[in-house]
Amino acid sequence: MSTPPGSITPPGSITSVPAAVESALRTFFDSRRPITDAVGGTFGDAAGALEAFVLRGGKRVRPTFAWTGWLGAGGDAAGSDADAVLRVCSALELVQACALVHDDIIDSSATRRGFPTLHVEFAHRHRVGGWSGDADEFGESIAILLGDLALAWADDLVRESGIDAVAQTRIGPVWSAMRTEVLGGQYLDVHTEVTADESVAAALRINRYKTAAYTIERPLHLGAALAGADDALIAAYREFGTDIGIAFQLQDDLLGVFGDPEVTGKPSGDDLREGKRTVLFAEALLRADASDPGTADFLRRGIGADLTDDQVQRMRQVIVDLGAVEAVQARIDDLTATGLRALDGSSATDEAKAELRAMAVALGRRSA
Amino acid sequence: MSTPPGSITPPGSITSVPAAVESALRTFFDSRRPITDAVGGTFGDAAGALEAFVLRGGKRVRPTFAWTGWLGAGGDAAGSDADAVLRVCSALELVQACALVHDDIIDSSATRRGFPTLHVEFAHRHRVGGWSGDADEFGESIAILLGDLALAWADDLVRESGIDAVAQTRIGPVWSAMRTEVLGGQYLDVHTEVTADESVAAALRINRYKTAAYTIERPLHLGAALAGADDALIAAYREFGTDIGIAFQLQDDLLGVFGDPEVTGKPSGDDLREGKRTVLFAEALLRADASDPGTADFLRRGIGADLTDDQVQRMRQVIVDLGAVEAVQARIDDLTATGLRALDGSSATDEAKAELRAMAVALGRRSA
Repeated sequence: MSTPPGSITPPGSITSVPAAVESALRTFFDSRRPITDAVGGTFGDAAGALEAFVLRGGKRVRPTFAWTGWLGAGGDAAGSDADAVLRVCSALELVQACALVHDDIIDSSATRRGFPTLHVEFAHRHRVGGWSGDADEFGESIAILLGDLALAWADDLVRESGIDAVAQTRIGPVWSAMRTEVLGGQYLDVHTEVTADESVAAALRINRYKTAAYTIERPLHLGAALAGADDALIAAYREFGTDIGIAFQLQDDLLGVFGDPEVTGKPSGDDLREGKRTVLFAEALLRADASDPGTADFLRRGIGADLTDDQVQRMRQVIVDLGAVEAVQARIDDLTATGLRALDGSSATDEAKAELRAMAVALGRRSA
Repeated sequence: MSTPPGSITPPGSITSVPAAVESALRTFFDSRRPITDAVGGTFGDAAGALEAFVLRGGKRVRPTFAWTGWLGAGGDAAGSDADAVLRVCSALELVQACALVHDDIIDSSATRRGFPTLHVEFAHRHRVGGWSGDADEFGESIAILLGDLALAWADDLVRESGIDAVAQTRIGPVWSAMRTEVLGGQYLDVHTEVTADESVAAALRINRYKTAAYTIERPLHLGAALAGADDALIAAYREFGTDIGIAFQLQDDLLGVFGDPEVTGKPSGDDLREGKRTVLFAEALLRADASDPGTADFLRRGIGADLTDDQVQRMRQVIVDLGAVEAVQARIDDLTATGLRALDGSSATDEAKAELRAMAVALGRRSA
């Protein structure tokens, strides 16, 4: 039942990981067609919409970390298990598809990577078809089910990857922890937003589990487990992954408030309108409470409100003036330094260290 | 990483399967606590709400079929692998939890098994807490994430069940097909409802995948695969499961229109108000179109509308008068007969045949 070997080509270098992952994903989606066809009706079209969503883009950050973690722990890109390992790495994109599709419902986001989100796309199909009932509810219902399908298929891809039973046993706890952690992080994100928990600690907890563990720490851990790495390397990877992952999310928080919509594909100031309780916002509030109650009040009234572009601009200026951006940037720099130190002291191959260092720096400096 | 052996007791007879399943599920939920605690915040409370939902009830139909299928294919309830097999069977309840929690959002159902549905429960917590934002959106967001958690945990329970690698390989394709089929069935259900597909064929397709495959055919197939059954027994189980499963859903369709709310725990005539395109309704329309256009028009205007109890009562009477109930009952009887014939001709143990026959008859005759 494993996917036929030889149908994909493992990446020869880090820059070719995304293309190899997309090829593995395409092969996997092809392998699902007999069952979606058997179910029949328009189910195949719906699965096709999920496939288009998954193949449409993203930087394949998680599979790239997992693959590099595997190489750095002694994996051989030319070895006989490389195809199978690549499939496990690619499965991370299906977990991510579930997370994004369901998050877009939760956040009522209209666009993703410059395209309509899945729930918006299906609401649109409902309207164009002149179908009965509520178009938005229909769109959300289909997107809930397609997110579930992505999550179930992620497990299928791991199970059918072709890695041996010993490797399956090694990665089991990592795979399990990763999915529970990201769901926990998403849960805390939603819960913290409505309960208006203003602490930096709550915001950091969400960062840790919604992003850091899920984006870098666990993918690297997965790669290490695939390679059968020792405990010391796993610990070093995890420290690197946690620090760099939190730094990555802090950078994302800055983009959520200051990012260019043309580049990010999300509306300007989205996090402020959404009421996201980020570390950036918590830092701003902490400072305003200490120095200027009027400004703190202004921020509390603004967060999560239906803001005009002018109001967004004023909130941005206040956040900068309070020194919150500088503080977050300093955190990013500190975390990047400690993360890189853990990596440097590890037994990872020199090549992997160089790649991971470059990825960490790129994440910390990205503009989109 | 497998759950410690000896912590659960395999059922000594079919009637004790539900209690054994609940014990296995309780042990599994306990095993998740370290990771939900590590994530922290109120995530443990949310996971507790999922646990309460899963343990609250249900007849454990799917695990009972899987367990009986395993016994019937030579499984030994006193054998060394019985604990591990029971865990795999129990994982079906976690897939079911995801299906129910997400279905309740999709159907906007307020109650389930006499309790508030998860999205309603969390909306209630939001209101009681006086939190910010929309209580209903919050409830749905949390329920989306908890449904995802149930689906991820279902896979964890299978992976950590303790069955050997060969058995894992045997059940992989069954486990995979089952989840894709139920999601396909749910998708078709939603899609057929809004596109108002009136054909008996469309309604039967939904029955087949949303219910028959998922409730009986695949659980039996899973049990057979766990036991390493031969192809002939698997084919017989699948034929039995498909026929009895469709009969079960047809019975459920009757209850959705004629069931007693006190017994079913759902509002009277719920399927008519929800606009469910059941075989029952398709049969009624087919007959009305052939004999009485005015009645057909009455049914089309009523289905999915905000009906009063009186209107529900009038629609019920029309459906009975058209002979649709009798036709559906005849289908149930036919399917039960062919399903039982397939079972009788199989190599399943006599004990299992007797149990499966009794379960089939009970499903076809149940009043709730």
